[in-house]
Amino acid sequence: MKEVVAIIRMNMVNKTKAALLEAGFPFFTCRKVMGRGKKKVDFVMIEDALIGEIVDKGVAEQASEAYRLISKRMIILLVKDEDVDKVVNEIIKVNSTGNPGDGKIFITNVIDVARIRTGERGEAAI
Amino acid sequence: MKEVVAIIRMNMVNKTKAALLEAGFPFFTCRKVMGRGKKKVDFVMIEDALIGEIVDKGVAEQASEAYRLISKRMIILLVKDEDVDKVVNEIIKVNSTGNPGDGKIFITNVIDVARIRTGERGEAAI
Amino acid sequence: MKEVVAIIRMNMVNKTKAALLEAGFPFFTCRKVMGRGKKKVDFVMIEDALIGEIVDKGVAEQASEAYRLISKRMIILLVKDEDVDKVVNEIIKVNSTGNPGDGKIFITNVIDVARIRTGERGEAAI
Repeated sequence: MKEVVAIIRMNMVNKTKAALLEAGFPFFTCRKVMGRGKKKVDFVMIEDALIGEIVDKGVAEQASEAYRLISKRMIILLVKDEDVDKVVNEIIKVNSTGNPGDGKIFITNVIDVARIRTGERGEAAI
Repeated sequence: MKEVVAIIRMNMVNKTKAALLEAGFPFFTCRKVMGRGKKKVDFVMIEDALIGEIVDKGVAEQASEAYRLISKRMIILLVKDEDVDKVVNEIIKVNSTGNPGDGKIFITNVIDVARIRTGERGEAAI
Repeated sequence: MKEVVAIIRMNMVNKTKAALLEAGFPFFTCRKVMGRGKKKVDFVMIEDALIGEIVDKGVAEQASEAYRLISKRMIILLVKDEDVDKVVNEIIKVNSTGNPGDGKIFITNVIDVARIRTGERGEAAI
Protein backbone atom coordinates (compact mmCIF):
# COMPACT_ATOMS: atom_id res chain seq x y z
CA MET A 1 0.00 0.00 0.00
CA LYS A 2 1.14 3.51 -0.74
CA GLU A 3 0.11 6.96 0.37
CA VAL A 4 -0.06 9.40 -2.53
CA VAL A 5 0.11 13.04 -1.41
CA ALA A 6 -0.47 15.78 -3.97
CA ILE A 7 -0.04 19.51 -3.38
CA ILE A 8 -2.19 21.29 -5.94
CA ARG A 9 -3.67 24.72 -6.68
CA MET A 10 -6.71 25.63 -4.59
CA ASN A 11 -8.93 26.02 -7.65
CA MET A 12 -8.09 22.53 -8.94
CA VAL A 13 -9.53 20.53 -6.04
CA ASN A 14 -13.00 19.84 -7.41
CA LYS A 15 -11.75 19.02 -10.91
CA THR A 16 -9.16 16.64 -9.46
CA LYS A 17 -11.69 15.06 -7.14
CA ALA A 18 -14.09 14.43 -10.02
CA ALA A 19 -11.38 12.93 -12.25
CA LEU A 20 -10.10 10.61 -9.52
CA LEU A 21 -13.59 9.50 -8.55
CA GLU A 22 -14.30 8.76 -12.23
CA ALA A 23 -11.12 6.66 -12.32
CA GLY A 24 -12.26 4.78 -9.23
CA PHE A 25 -10.18 6.51 -6.56
CA PRO A 26 -12.04 8.53 -3.92
CA PHE A 27 -10.10 11.08 -1.87
CA PHE A 28 -8.86 10.15 1.48
CA THR A 29 -8.42 13.64 2.94
CA CYS A 30 -7.98 17.21 1.79
CA ARG A 31 -6.21 19.87 3.85
CA LYS A 32 -5.34 23.51 3.54
CA VAL A 33 -1.58 24.04 3.53
CA MET A 34 0.69 26.98 3.01
CA GLY A 35 3.45 26.12 0.62
CA ARG A 36 6.39 27.50 -1.21
CA GLY A 37 8.55 25.92 -3.83
CA LYS A 38 11.97 27.09 -4.82
CA LYS A 39 12.46 30.82 -4.78
CA LYS A 40 12.25 31.38 -8.52
CA VAL A 41 8.95 29.55 -8.66
CA ASP A 42 7.37 31.62 -5.93
CA PHE A 43 7.51 34.86 -7.84
CA VAL A 44 5.38 33.40 -10.57
CA MET A 45 3.02 31.83 -8.06
CA ILE A 46 2.50 35.24 -6.41
CA GLU A 47 1.79 36.84 -9.77
CA ASP A 48 -0.75 34.12 -10.48
CA ALA A 49 -2.33 34.95 -7.17
CA LEU A 50 -2.56 38.64 -7.87
CA ILE A 51 -4.15 38.19 -11.27
CA GLY A 52 -7.04 36.30 -9.84
CA GLU A 53 -6.38 32.74 -8.79
CA ILE A 54 -8.41 31.95 -5.69
CA VAL A 55 -5.92 32.51 -2.88
CA ASP A 56 -5.81 33.94 0.59
CA LYS A 57 -5.44 37.60 -0.36
CA GLY A 58 -4.05 38.55 3.02
CA VAL A 59 -1.23 36.12 2.51
CA ALA A 60 -0.40 37.39 -0.95
CA GLU A 61 -0.44 41.00 0.15
CA GLN A 62 1.61 40.56 3.28
CA ALA A 63 4.17 38.37 1.60
CA SER A 64 7.63 39.88 1.74
CA GLU A 65 10.17 38.71 -0.79
CA ALA A 66 11.76 36.32 1.69
CA TYR A 67 8.76 34.84 3.46
CA ARG A 68 5.96 34.47 0.98
CA LEU A 69 3.83 31.39 1.31
CA ILE A 70 0.97 30.44 -0.99
CA SER A 71 -2.27 28.79 0.07
CA LYS A 72 -2.46 25.35 -1.52
CA ARG A 73 -4.48 22.21 -1.06
CA MET A 74 -3.00 18.87 -0.06
CA ILE A 75 -4.95 15.80 -1.11
CA ILE A 76 -4.10 12.37 0.21
CA LEU A 77 -5.10 9.02 -1.27
CA LEU A 78 -4.36 5.55 -0.05
CA VAL A 79 -3.80 3.24 -3.03
CA LYS A 80 -2.69 -0.28 -3.75
CA ASP A 81 0.86 -0.60 -5.09
CA GLU A 82 -0.30 -1.52 -8.57
CA ASP A 83 -2.51 1.60 -8.81
CA VAL A 84 0.10 4.21 -7.88
CA ASP A 85 1.11 5.12 -11.44
CA LYS A 86 -2.49 5.35 -12.58
CA VAL A 87 -3.33 7.77 -9.77
CA VAL A 88 -0.18 9.83 -10.27
CA ASN A 89 -0.78 10.14 -14.01
CA GLU A 90 -4.40 11.11 -13.48
CA ILE A 91 -3.40 13.90 -11.08
CA ILE A 92 -0.73 15.15 -13.49
CA LYS A 93 -3.17 15.10 -16.41
CA VAL A 94 -5.75 17.19 -14.58
CA ASN A 95 -3.40 19.62 -12.83
CA SER A 96 -0.69 20.34 -15.37
CA THR A 97 -1.17 23.84 -16.77
CA GLY A 98 2.47 24.19 -17.85
CA ASN A 99 3.01 27.05 -15.37
CA PRO A 100 5.22 26.95 -12.29
CA GLY A 101 3.11 26.36 -9.19
CA ASP A 102 1.23 23.38 -10.60
CA GLY A 103 2.37 21.41 -7.57
CA LYS A 104 4.01 18.13 -6.63
CA ILE A 105 3.15 14.56 -5.81
CA PHE A 106 4.87 12.43 -3.15
CA ILE A 107 4.63 8.70 -2.72
CA THR A 108 5.33 7.08 0.64
CA ASN A 109 5.00 3.57 1.93
CA VAL A 110 2.16 2.51 4.25
CA ILE A 111 2.91 -0.50 6.42
CA ASP A 112 -0.59 -1.34 7.54
CA VAL A 113 -4.17 -0.02 7.60
CA ALA A 114 -7.06 -0.74 9.97
CA ARG A 115 -10.75 -0.05 9.44
CA ILE A 116 -12.01 1.18 12.81
CA ARG A 117 -15.58 -0.06 12.41
CA THR A 118 -14.65 -3.70 11.81
CA GLY A 119 -11.07 -3.96 13.01
CA GLU A 120 -10.00 -5.33 9.59
CA ARG A 121 -6.31 -4.92 8.79
CA GLY A 122 -4.29 -4.77 5.56
CA GLU A 123 -5.64 -4.46 2.01
CA ALA A 124 -9.14 -5.44 3.14
CA ALA A 125 -9.25 -2.15 5.05
CA ILE A 126 -8.43 0.19 2.14
CA MET B 1 9.47 3.65 15.41
CA LYS B 2 6.12 4.01 13.73
CA GLU B 3 3.73 6.85 13.04
CA VAL B 4 0.13 5.90 13.76
CA VAL B 5 -2.38 8.17 11.99
CA ALA B 6 -6.07 7.81 12.79
CA ILE B 7 -8.93 9.60 11.03
CA ILE B 8 -11.83 9.68 13.46
CA ARG B 9 -15.18 11.41 13.99
CA MET B 10 -14.96 14.96 15.32
CA ASN B 11 -16.93 14.15 18.44
CA MET B 12 -14.61 11.28 19.39
CA VAL B 13 -11.43 13.30 19.89
CA ASN B 14 -11.65 13.90 23.64
CA LYS B 15 -12.75 10.36 24.43
CA THR B 16 -9.90 8.97 22.31
CA LYS B 17 -7.40 11.33 23.86
CA ALA B 18 -8.44 10.32 27.37
CA ALA B 19 -8.25 6.59 26.57
CA LEU B 20 -4.83 6.86 24.97
CA LEU B 21 -3.46 8.99 27.77
CA GLU B 22 -4.78 6.43 30.26
CA ALA B 23 -2.95 3.72 28.29
CA GLY B 24 0.24 5.77 28.42
CA PHE B 25 0.20 7.29 24.94
CA PRO B 26 -0.18 11.07 24.72
CA PHE B 27 -1.21 12.59 21.37
CA PHE B 28 1.38 13.95 19.11
CA THR B 29 -0.84 16.21 17.02
CA CYS B 30 -4.46 16.68 16.08
CA ARG B 31 -5.59 18.33 12.84
CA LYS B 32 -8.84 19.17 11.14
CA VAL B 33 -9.21 17.36 7.82
CA MET B 34 -11.93 16.97 5.26
CA GLY B 35 -12.37 13.37 4.32
CA ARG B 36 -14.45 11.01 2.31
CA GLY B 37 -14.41 7.27 2.15
CA LYS B 38 -15.84 5.18 -0.62
CA LYS B 39 -18.98 6.54 -2.18
CA LYS B 40 -21.41 4.22 -0.46
CA VAL B 41 -20.03 5.16 2.92
CA ASP B 42 -20.41 8.86 2.36
CA PHE B 43 -24.16 8.79 2.14
CA VAL B 44 -24.39 7.38 5.61
CA MET B 45 -21.81 9.80 6.91
CA ILE B 46 -23.84 12.71 5.58
CA GLU B 47 -26.96 11.36 7.26
CA ASP B 48 -25.05 11.13 10.50
CA ALA B 49 -24.12 14.75 10.03
CA LEU B 50 -27.64 15.91 9.44
CA ILE B 51 -29.06 14.15 12.46
CA GLY B 52 -26.81 15.98 14.81
CA GLU B 53 -23.20 14.83 14.86
CA ILE B 54 -20.97 17.82 15.37
CA VAL B 55 -19.90 18.69 11.83
CA ASP B 56 -19.36 21.74 9.70
CA LYS B 57 -22.98 22.38 8.70
CA GLY B 58 -21.97 24.45 5.71
CA VAL B 59 -20.06 21.51 4.36
CA ALA B 60 -22.91 19.08 4.84
CA GLU B 61 -25.45 21.37 3.26
CA GLN B 62 -23.41 22.35 0.25
CA ALA B 63 -22.30 18.82 -0.44
CA SER B 64 -23.45 17.66 -3.85
CA GLU B 65 -23.65 13.95 -4.48
CA ALA B 66 -20.29 13.94 -6.25
CA TYR B 67 -18.22 16.22 -4.07
CA ARG B 68 -19.27 15.77 -0.48
CA LEU B 69 -16.52 15.90 2.08
CA ILE B 70 -16.98 15.41 5.80
CA SER B 71 -15.10 17.25 8.52
CA LYS B 72 -13.00 14.75 10.45
CA ARG B 73 -10.14 14.85 12.90
CA MET B 74 -6.72 13.33 12.21
CA ILE B 75 -4.71 12.34 15.26
CA ILE B 76 -1.07 11.36 15.00
CA LEU B 77 0.98 9.42 17.53
CA LEU B 78 4.60 8.40 17.41
CA VAL B 79 5.02 4.97 18.99
CA LYS B 80 7.67 2.33 19.49
CA ASP B 81 7.34 -0.71 17.20
CA GLU B 82 6.25 -2.97 20.04
CA ASP B 83 3.43 -0.60 21.06
CA VAL B 84 1.75 -0.26 17.64
CA ASP B 85 -0.86 -2.98 18.13
CA LYS B 86 -1.74 -1.74 21.61
CA VAL B 87 -2.35 1.78 20.30
CA VAL B 88 -4.30 0.56 17.23
CA ASN B 89 -6.53 -1.67 19.34
CA GLU B 90 -7.17 1.10 21.84
CA ILE B 91 -8.25 3.48 19.05
CA ILE B 92 -10.52 0.82 17.53
CA LYS B 93 -12.06 0.02 20.93
CA VAL B 94 -12.97 3.66 21.61
CA ASN B 95 -14.06 4.66 18.10
CA SER B 96 -15.92 1.66 16.77
CA THR B 97 -19.64 2.39 16.76
CA GLY B 98 -20.41 -0.21 14.10
CA ASN B 99 -21.54 2.48 11.65
CA PRO B 100 -19.78 3.43 8.42
CA GLY B 101 -17.74 6.59 8.96
CA ASP B 102 -15.97 5.33 12.08
CA GLY B 103 -12.67 6.04 10.35
CA LYS B 104 -9.35 4.45 9.55
CA ILE B 105 -5.90 3.99 10.98
CA PHE B 106 -2.64 4.05 8.99
CA ILE B 107 0.76 2.92 10.12
CA THR B 108 3.91 4.25 8.52
CA ASN B 109 7.57 3.87 9.30
CA VAL B 110 9.60 6.64 10.93
CA ILE B 111 13.33 6.49 10.27
CA ASP B 112 14.57 8.85 12.93
CA VAL B 113 13.39 11.40 15.49
CA ALA B 114 15.18 14.36 17.05
CA ARG B 115 14.23 16.30 20.19
CA ILE B 116 14.93 19.94 19.35
CA ARG B 117 15.69 21.06 22.90
CA THR B 118 18.49 18.56 23.49
CA GLY B 119 19.44 17.36 20.03
CA GLU B 120 18.81 13.73 21.10
CA ARG B 121 18.12 11.32 18.25
CA GLY B 122 16.35 7.96 17.96
CA GLU B 123 14.19 6.27 20.62
CA ALA B 124 15.53 8.57 23.34
CA ALA B 125 13.73 11.41 21.57
CA ILE B 126 10.24 9.87 21.49
CA MET C 1 14.67 11.16 -0.62
CA LYS C 2 13.40 11.96 2.86
CA GLU C 3 10.57 13.97 4.31
CA VAL C 4 11.67 16.03 7.31
CA VAL C 5 8.75 17.10 9.52
CA ALA C 6 9.39 19.53 12.37
CA ILE C 7 6.88 20.58 15.03
CA ILE C 8 8.02 23.95 16.33
CA ARG C 9 6.76 26.90 18.38
CA MET C 10 4.42 29.25 16.51
CA ASN C 11 6.72 32.22 17.00
CA MET C 12 9.72 30.42 15.48
CA VAL C 13 8.34 29.90 11.98
CA ASN C 14 9.78 32.99 10.29
CA LYS C 15 13.19 32.64 11.92
CA THR C 16 13.34 28.96 10.91
CA LYS C 17 12.19 29.72 7.39
CA ALA C 18 14.87 32.39 6.98
CA ALA C 19 17.63 30.12 8.32
CA LEU C 20 16.64 27.20 6.09
CA LEU C 21 16.33 29.41 3.03
CA GLU C 22 19.79 30.81 3.78
CA ALA C 23 21.09 27.23 3.96
CA GLY C 24 19.50 26.46 0.60
CA PHE C 25 16.37 24.62 1.76
CA PRO C 26 13.03 26.29 1.03
CA PHE C 27 9.95 25.11 2.94
CA PHE C 28 7.64 22.67 1.38
CA THR C 29 4.57 23.32 3.52
CA CYS C 30 3.61 24.83 6.84
CA ARG C 31 0.48 23.83 8.78
CA LYS C 32 -1.21 24.72 12.02
CA VAL C 33 -1.41 21.77 14.37
CA MET C 34 -2.51 21.24 17.95
CA GLY C 35 0.05 19.26 19.84
CA ARG C 36 0.96 17.93 23.20
CA GLY C 37 4.09 16.22 24.38
CA LYS C 38 4.35 14.07 27.45
CA LYS C 39 2.32 15.20 30.40
CA LYS C 40 5.17 16.72 32.39
CA VAL C 41 6.18 18.84 29.44
CA ASP C 42 2.72 20.24 28.92
CA PHE C 43 2.55 22.07 32.18
CA VAL C 44 5.57 24.10 31.27
CA MET C 45 4.27 24.72 27.77
CA ILE C 46 1.05 26.11 29.20
CA GLU C 47 3.00 28.38 31.49
CA ASP C 48 5.00 29.61 28.51
CA ALA C 49 1.72 30.32 26.83
CA LEU C 50 0.33 32.28 29.72
CA ILE C 51 3.40 34.46 30.10
CA GLY C 52 3.13 35.72 26.59
CA GLU C 53 4.21 33.32 23.86
CA ILE C 54 1.98 33.76 20.84
CA VAL C 55 -0.61 31.01 21.31
CA ASP C 56 -4.30 30.54 20.88
CA LYS C 57 -5.47 32.04 24.16
CA GLY C 58 -8.78 30.25 24.05
CA VAL C 59 -6.96 26.96 23.92
CA ALA C 60 -4.72 27.77 26.83
CA GLU C 61 -7.57 29.00 28.99
CA GLN C 62 -9.95 26.16 28.29
CA ALA C 63 -7.29 23.51 28.72
CA SER C 64 -8.14 21.16 31.53
CA GLU C 65 -5.32 19.21 33.10
CA ALA C 66 -6.15 16.13 31.03
CA TYR C 67 -6.91 17.60 27.63
CA ARG C 68 -4.67 20.56 27.03
CA LEU C 69 -3.35 20.97 23.53
CA ILE C 70 -1.00 23.70 22.38
CA SER C 71 -1.08 25.43 19.00
CA LYS C 72 2.12 24.59 17.15
CA ARG C 73 3.39 24.83 13.61
CA MET C 74 4.38 21.82 11.51
CA ILE C 75 6.86 22.49 8.73
CA ILE C 76 7.66 19.90 6.10
CA LEU C 77 10.67 19.78 3.83
CA LEU C 78 11.57 17.29 1.15
CA VAL C 79 15.33 16.74 1.11
CA LYS C 80 17.89 14.49 -0.53
CA ASP C 81 19.26 11.74 1.71
CA GLU C 82 22.66 13.39 2.01
CA ASP C 83 21.12 16.69 3.21
CA VAL C 84 18.98 15.31 6.05
CA ASP C 85 21.50 15.90 8.83
CA LYS C 86 22.26 19.42 7.62
CA VAL C 87 18.55 20.32 7.67
CA VAL C 88 17.93 18.65 11.05
CA ASN C 89 20.89 20.41 12.64
CA GLU C 90 19.83 23.77 11.22
CA ILE C 91 16.32 23.37 12.66
CA ILE C 92 17.73 22.36 16.06
CA LYS C 93 20.16 25.31 16.06
CA VAL C 94 17.42 27.85 15.41
CA ASN C 95 14.69 26.35 17.62
CA SER C 96 16.52 25.11 20.68
CA THR C 97 15.79 27.44 23.61
CA GLY C 98 16.58 24.82 26.24
CA ASN C 99 12.97 24.84 27.49
CA PRO C 100 10.49 21.96 27.18
CA GLY C 101 8.16 22.58 24.26
CA ASP C 102 10.90 23.35 21.73
CA GLY C 103 9.46 20.60 19.55
CA LYS C 104 10.49 17.53 17.61
CA ILE C 105 11.71 16.49 14.19
CA PHE C 106 10.66 13.30 12.36
CA ILE C 107 12.33 11.79 9.32
CA THR C 108 10.40 9.49 7.00
CA ASN C 109 11.25 7.88 3.70
CA VAL C 110 9.80 9.14 0.42
CA ILE C 111 9.67 6.56 -2.36
CA ASP C 112 9.08 8.84 -5.32
CA VAL C 113 8.22 12.41 -6.27
CA ALA C 114 6.55 13.82 -9.36
CA ARG C 115 6.52 17.45 -10.57
CA ILE C 116 3.00 18.01 -11.86
CA ARG C 117 3.91 20.65 -14.45
CA THR C 118 6.42 18.49 -16.30
CA GLY C 119 5.68 14.96 -15.19
CA GLU C 120 9.31 14.53 -14.06
CA ARG C 121 9.83 11.79 -11.46
CA GLY C 122 12.51 11.11 -8.84
CA GLU C 123 15.28 13.48 -7.69
CA ALA C 124 14.77 15.71 -10.74
CA ALA C 125 11.38 16.61 -9.29
CA ILE C 126 12.56 17.80 -5.86
